[in-house]
Parts: sequence; structure tokens; C-alpha cells
Amino acid sequence: MNTVGDVQTQFATIATPENPFLFRSGESLDHVEIAFETYGELNGDRSNAILLFHAFSGSQHAAGFNPKVEKTPFWTPECEEGWWDLFIGPGKALDTEKYFIICANYVGGCYGSTGPSSINPDTGERYGSKFPRITVRDLVESQIRLLDHFEIDQLLAVVGPSTGGLSCVSLATNYPERTRAVIPIATGTRTTVLNRIILLEQILAIENDPMFRAGEYYETGAPETGLGLARMISHKTFVHLDAIERRANKEVKQPVGRFSWYQAHDHVESYMLHQGKKFTDRFDANTYLRICEMWSRHNPVEEGGASDPIDLFSRSREAGHEYLVFSIDEDYCFYPEEQAALVEQLKEAEVPHLFLTVHSEKGHDSFLLEPELYTPHIRQVLENAGI
Amino acid sequence: MNTVGDVQTQFATIATPENPFLFRSGESLDHVEIAFETYGELNGDRSNAILLFHAFSGSQHAAGFNPKVEKTPFWTPECEEGWWDLFIGPGKALDTEKYFIICANYVGGCYGSTGPSSINPDTGERYGSKFPRITVRDLVESQIRLLDHFEIDQLLAVVGPSTGGLSCVSLATNYPERTRAVIPIATGTRTTVLNRIILLEQILAIENDPMFRAGEYYETGAPETGLGLARMISHKTFVHLDAIERRANKEVKQPVGRFSWYQAHDHVESYMLHQGKKFTDRFDANTYLRICEMWSRHNPVEEGGASDPIDLFSRSREAGHEYLVFSIDEDYCFYPEEQAALVEQLKEAEVPHLFLTVHSEKGHDSFLLEPELYTPHIRQVLENAGI
Repeated sequence: MNTVGDVQTQFATIATPENPFLFRSGESLDHVEIAFETYGELNGDRSNAILLFHAFSGSQHAAGFNPKVEKTPFWTPECEEGWWDLFIGPGKALDTEKYFIICANYVGGCYGSTGPSSINPDTGERYGSKFPRITVRDLVESQIRLLDHFEIDQLLAVVGPSTGGLSCVSLATNYPERTRAVIPIATGTRTTVLNRIILLEQILAIENDPMFRAGEYYETGAPETGLGLARMISHKTFVHLDAIERRANKEVKQPVGRFSWYQAHDHVESYMLHQGKKFTDRFDANTYLRICEMWSRHNPVEEGGASDPIDLFSRSREAGHEYLVFSIDEDYCFYPEEQAALVEQLKEAEVPHLFLTVHSEKGHDSFLLEPELYTPHIRQVLENAGI
Repeated sequence: MNTVGDVQTQFATIATPENPFLFRSGESLDHVEIAFETYGELNGDRSNAILLFHAFSGSQHAAGFNPKVEKTPFWTPECEEGWWDLFIGPGKALDTEKYFIICANYVGGCYGSTGPSSINPDTGERYGSKFPRITVRDLVESQIRLLDHFEIDQLLAVVGPSTGGLSCVSLATNYPERTRAVIPIATGTRTTVLNRIILLEQILAIENDPMFRAGEYYETGAPETGLGLARMISHKTFVHLDAIERRANKEVKQPVGRFSWYQAHDHVESYMLHQGKKFTDRFDANTYLRICEMWSRHNPVEEGGASDPIDLFSRSREAGHEYLVFSIDEDYCFYPEEQAALVEQLKEAEVPHLFLTVHSEKGHDSFLLEPELYTPHIRQVLENAGI
């Protein structure tokens, strides 16, 4: 239940012609704004801040109600409720009476941060295909600049569920002095072959859509069929298959009449088509492609300039981090093996950590829906991290 | 190793204007030819015949070498080796010195049996979108007519791996008097939600391709990007992911330059793209859509006019069938749970059966590659079935 009330997205300028933002691809931008929201109050010594990284298709709007965000055409009614409302608020896992929580849309995003659909002030045109490719490290770098903007030297904790967990671990290992606790949830380290294949399918679905036009579609219409198919391909990994069947039977949808030959017959088909279709209103295909590529290519050891995972995580040991790692037992997006691999690396690097598996029938989506499975441990680790 | 030698595809007419072929959809065709091959000799009392159903994208060419098949433009060098060569020949699982083995391309196929890419002799044009939708039962019915053509009243055994197993069980339960043994391998009964979703993705990949033109593309060019993506989506379920990675590293492919924005970087991506691309030369998208739909909609109880699975399989008990059911432990196409469900139904209906799980690192493809895991049991069950 929303206990945070109405909130507004704010904007911070993190790059200017005098201080451009350099991407790992070698490209740079002279103008970068980051859209973010905050919940709770920053204390006097700036020691109670928690940075929360949102997932793949999420936004900076993590808690409360926000009916309108400037600088994005993708804010639909589906976006209005905070995606982690069940975890953020007075007395919740991220307690707004104690902590100052920041959540920002990643650079390259489509919810107000500078991304492919933004207008380049130097040309007056949308970046489109000219927007740089992004990596997890770029995303972390942009949010380090946001912490600088707040003059926050050290976070109490960095938290990241799903793909947000990639950034969470990247921040902890590349800027170890900037946080105390590290809470990756249902995430991974090196991207698996299965995920790389599924991400390639999604990229290809968009590339195959003739409306895509190599990313230059803002004047001619979005590649909706391709983006819709991409979303369907990923959606089945987010939600447990039993839950898809239950939801499909409950929320009976009219068949979507988009096919030329095929007739969707059953509830599961209509439900999946509906998931794909509604997503195309609230997301930008160019952003989608960039985060697919980001996830697919992610290699934390290389990105961190480390020699191996032990070398990488020794930075966390030296900084005195405590990790809290959550697995979801029936997760088909980030499989439990992936968190086990992360924990194995923490063990080898002798980093203090707690590792829990939540048992859920909801699959990967559990991290959004079942706060009771996560809250006591998150609360405890945040208390441990308090100065 | 091919021990059958050179073979030829033959053709049987199973429908004429006087004896049309009625599909379960209510549509009918006045002209149906079935492409088939045979190996070994039919004995005098026609009691040594084995019918083998091929899988999803397979053909009638199960054994030996066949460089050329009439009436199909889809016969590429990839098709020349028999797909079950390791299982068919003197002394092999299906021993050509003892048995007469028949394998036929399904109705609606693209390897010589009448299908969407065939020319309708009444109009002189290809059927295209006008070709009827197919069901497993239609496919079985077409091959029952082929058995009639051979005047074979009762098979020694019916064998079907993968989607061929759906037909194998359908024949056994709908024409129980027509066989003695039943050998479904790595197959299922009712199509699972996961498979229905993955099949829908493939259908959508083809439908999204503007070259598809509702199935009327024979004059304008095939929907290759859509069919290629569909194949990629299914390919990952056929081959174990570890094997994909091993193969990809071994068979280094040049990146396929088909993308407008994305650059394929790694071996797995190039390998998957190559799998998709080469498939488009050897398969017809209209056939592909029909078998996707066939599999997705398959409901053996309803199709068999039975009241429930026990009622369905009681026909096998009454006919004295022996079933030999194989599971593959790491099968991501037909999951082991699906064969377990089939066996549970056989148990409840008190049908004699043997149920084995082969342990393989090859995934679903094991049924093509590892005859040593299957041959002794197949040989024994065929001996038991001998009169």
C-alpha cells in the first residue's frame, strides 16, 4: 500500500560542455540530465542515504503516486504507482522515517533521463541511433555523479533487484568507499548463455520490424510489433508460468486482432499479446535495445579492470562491506545458480555476506510482490550498516 | 554412420476428388500426395512394418543418402543425410534386415507431401494461406491412408521422437488395432504453457515480418527474417545450452551482417544467427506456422473423442499395446515432466509400459545423436512385439 503519498520526479544536470559524460564506448555527451526521485529526509551528516537501482524496464518512480513526469512521452497510467511501494515508506524495508532513498532513471533511459528519445540541444533533434551504447559501468558512473550532486560521500547501502543488481554490485566494487552495505536481489554476475540468447531474440525482434529504421523512427512511428514481441519474450521469464496461467484465466482479454493468418484462441495467448501490446505505449525501443545490449555484454571483472572475481571483490572486503544476497527459488529470469555464483565469489574473496533464498510461486516477480519475504533481513542489514 | 546407402523419396496419392481428405478444421482437399521413404523389405504377411513419425522440422528422409527430392524447393545439402541414420540400418535399433521401416512427410509439410507451397492442380497456383490448418489427428489420418496404400493392417510398432511422439500416441489411441508396440521418445501429451508461449513467439516472429503477407509470399519472397528468428527461438530448446556454447566456440562463424544497429559480438550470437539464417533456405514459413499451431493446440483427449486420459489410453490396454517411453534428463523442449505425465496416464489406464530416462549432456537432441542410450530397449520391445 502506498504510504509515501504524492511524489515528483526531479532532474539533475550531471554533464555540461565543460564536464562532458564519457561513455565506455569512447563516445561522450555534453548534456546529460538524470531524472530521479527521493523519499525520506537526508540527515545533517548525509549518512542515511540509500541508492536504489531500478530494473530493466522500470523507472525512477519507486514509491508513492506520480501522475506526470516531464520530458518523457512514455509515462502511462501503468507508471503512476511506485514500483517498489511495498518496500518503501514509514516502517517498511526502506524506512522513510530513518533513511533518505534515491532512485534514478539510468542514462539512456526513457523516463526523463537523457536517452535516445531526448532532444540533443546542440542539434534540436532526437538522438535516436546516435545515442551512445551503454554499459553497467556507465550507468553507475552517472549515478555517482548524482551522489556528488547531493554531496553524499558514502551511502548507507546500495540496493538493486534484477538487472538493477548488476549496477549495485558494480558500484560496490568500483566505488567501494561510496557505500557500506550492498543488497543485490535476484540478480547475477556474468550474463549466462541462456540470457544472452533470449536478449538476442529480443534485439532481433526489434531489428526485424521495418518501422525500426536503424533507430530513426521518432518521426515515422515506433516499431511496435517488434517491441511487443520482445516484451513477450522477456515477460515469460519474469512471471512464474503457473502465475501466467492463473492471471490469464482471471484477466480474460479479448483476442488482439493483430495477426494476418493466426487466430489467438486461448487466454494465455491473449494475455501474452496484451502484455506485449501495452508495453509499447510505455517504452522506447532504442532504450530497450541499449539495455538488452548492456545486460548481454556485462562482464564485471573486465569492466572493473580486475584480474579475476577474487581481485574484484577484495575491494569490497577492504571497504568493510556487508552483502545481503537474495535468491528466488523459481526464478526463470536470473536463475538461482547465478546468485550462487555471485556468493561463491564473495566467499572466495572473504567478503562478509548473508545469502537467503525466498520460496515463492511468483517467480522473478516475487521481488516486487512479497515484501514479507525480504523486509526483516533488509531492515537488519541497514541497522548493522548504521554508523 | 550411414549403412543404408542411397535412397529415394517416393510418393503416394492418398486423396482424389472421389476420395477427398477431410481435415478436422472442416476443410478438405481433393488432391493429397504423401512423400515417404522406406528401408528394409516388407515381409510376405506384412507383419514387420514400423512407422516412424518425424519431428517438427524433419522430413521423410530418415536414413541413407538422398541428394534430390522432387516436388520441393527446400531440399538443401543439409537435408541429404538421413536424420535417424544412427538408428536405422542393419543391426541398428530399427534393423533393416528384419523390419520394413516407413517414414513419411506430414500432410502440410514442405518436403514433397502436399502442403501450402504445393501447387493446387485445380487452380495452377500455390495453396499459400488457403491451405487448411492441421492437427495431429490429420497427420495421423494421412499416414493411416499410407498404411492402407501398403495394405498393412497392423504395424509391429509406431515410433515417434519429439513432436513425432504426439502422432505416435495419437495413432496408438485412435487406431489401436493398427499397431502392437508404441515408442514415444522425448515427447508430451497436453502442450504446456511454456511451450504454448514459445510457439506463440515463433508465430508472431513470422507474422511480424512484412514479407509474410498473410501467407501469400511465394511470388514476392519469403519472410526470411521472421522465420530465422522463429528458428532461433526454438533452437535453444533443442540443444543443451552448454552444447550451444561448445559448438559456438568450435564452429566460429563470421558475424552475420544483417542488423542495422546491433553488432553481433560473440560466438554464441553468431552461432544462433547462423542457425536461423540457414534454416530459412530449407523450410517453408507457411508449413512452420501450421506445425506451430498444431503443437500449440494439441489436446489428445479431445482429439480422440475420449472422456479423459484413462478413457483414451484404455484403448491401448484393450489392444494389448506395450509402450516404451523415453525421457531425456536435460531436455528443454519436451521437459521430463511431460513424459512423466504421459506415463502417469498409462499407469492409471493400466497399460503395460517401460519408462526410461537417458542421462545426456546434449539435451533434446540426444534422440538424434546417442543411439547407444536407446537401442537395446528399442530392439527388445520390437522383439517382444514380433508375432
